[in-house]
Amino acid sequence: MHLRLVVAYDGTDFHGFAENTGVRTVGGVLRSALEDVLGVPVDLTCAGRTDRGVHARGQVVSVRSAAAVGPVDPDRLRRSLVSMLGPEVVVRSVEPAPEGFDARFSATGRTYRYLILDQPVPDPFVARRVWWVPDALDVDAMGEAALVLVGEHDFSTFCRRPRGDLPVSLVRRVTAAGFDRPPPDATGGGARLLRFEITASAFCHQMVRSIVGLLVEVGRGRRTVDDVVRGLEARDRSHLPTLAPPSGLTLWRVDYDGDDAGGVGAQA
Amino acid sequence: MHLRLVVAYDGTDFHGFAENTGVRTVGGVLRSALEDVLGVPVDLTCAGRTDRGVHARGQVVSVRSAAAVGPVDPDRLRRSLVSMLGPEVVVRSVEPAPEGFDARFSATGRTYRYLILDQPVPDPFVARRVWWVPDALDVDAMGEAALVLVGEHDFSTFCRRPRGDLPVSLVRRVTAAGFDRPPPDATGGGARLLRFEITASAFCHQMVRSIVGLLVEVGRGRRTVDDVVRGLEARDRSHLPTLAPPSGLTLWRVDYDGDDAGGVGAQA
Repeated sequence: MHLRLVVAYDGTDFHGFAENTGVRTVGGVLRSALEDVLGVPVDLTCAGRTDRGVHARGQVVSVRSAAAVGPVDPDRLRRSLVSMLGPEVVVRSVEPAPEGFDARFSATGRTYRYLILDQPVPDPFVARRVWWVPDALDVDAMGEAALVLVGEHDFSTFCRRPRGDLPVSLVRRVTAAGFDRPPPDATGGGARLLRFEITASAFCHQMVRSIVGLLVEVGRGRRTVDDVVRGLEARDRSHLPTLAPPSGLTLWRVDYDGDDAGGVGAQA
Repeated sequence: MHLRLVVAYDGTDFHGFAENTGVRTVGGVLRSALEDVLGVPVDLTCAGRTDRGVHARGQVVSVRSAAAVGPVDPDRLRRSLVSMLGPEVVVRSVEPAPEGFDARFSATGRTYRYLILDQPVPDPFVARRVWWVPDALDVDAMGEAALVLVGEHDFSTFCRRPRGDLPVSLVRRVTAAGFDRPPPDATGGGARLLRFEITASAFCHQMVRSIVGLLVEVGRGRRTVDDVVRGLEARDRSHLPTLAPPSGLTLWRVDYDGDDAGGVGAQA
């Protein structure tokens, strides 16, 4: 059995996706619910191993079992998972995985969004999903600095290097990065948000939060666009200011060859 | 000393505004923070005594103290309160109360909003602030039924009668009521919401949640617009279906004579 799930979650109260002994993770609660419903052990692989506190709207998960499983009704399974895990974790779709599919290794692109609330007063209605920055930000300069990152680069400056002695390439291809202002939040606050969206073939660990942390410093006038150019070239993490907090970050979409242009997580 | 505060809060984890022994209330944490900063006992009066789990964007609060208080810098007090209580409770503004002002009795109108997520799948990013209704709703019929309520009526059908023997009028004047679709939520889910907004001189207890509970039954086709007409005329609470849950409800705005047209809580 091999299924492909699209999963959304509010990551605030989870220690990330990947299972880890002794802490509550998205992967842990999802695997446990799947095993309850299916009655067999399963293994999960996800497209993006989101960190503690990071959210997802279009996380893609491969669910495999070596054990014999009876016929699975995908929509019924989806509804069971929603009633067990929702609304904190919402399984948006369940379908048989295409031949040769792997949620992680088949992915050709990932898109993350990062929300900043750049106003003097915080907002209780968006607090779980934004970084509140009370300073006035120069958004034009931030957009210009974001463009510096587009293309194929060694992102060593922006990545936490994996533990271990093996040399690992931190070269990644960023295909798009920029800011916009979505319509005011309608769910209570009417907040005016600043949204950063970045798409790449793949990301290394903490890359988006490192980038946003630096771009906000550009927005505050404490760093320049030239500093971003030099920082990228330096391939040295000590050039960076503080990481942006996880609350603002959402894995928005994952792309696979053969899917519709919008990617697996893109449909409303 | 008499101050006027505008306060927003995520009511999910509060037992309403009004102070109540042994439970955590918005009024309780706000009074305690004010007394810490000002160093004197204070009394609070609010424009709308929101119930457990109900939110506010433009709650208005009178803060009075009979004790002598030194000079108060309103903006400094606001910043102190934000750092003590935010982002769950955000004091949006602090100013000296106008002569003769009372947050409750001077109010000439209150506006509530109620958010419904009417789609088959729930959404982790708006879950704290909506009522998830997975059924398809006839929004035109709901809008028509809402118009039945506009005008001056005895709302006994929609109100929990106050305890005690005194006869209390439940006549209220509803000046506007209707549905719209705000832009898709930008904070993570992209959810398409259905928004109900209702304005009245005043509301009686549980009135908005009673109304929304009935209107959703109209949307589901289980009640008709004529049922709403007859229900209103019956002045009998037993005509009602279940209350809508508190999560969807927000006290949006309070109007006072002499304020700008938009009301005290309306500015972004």
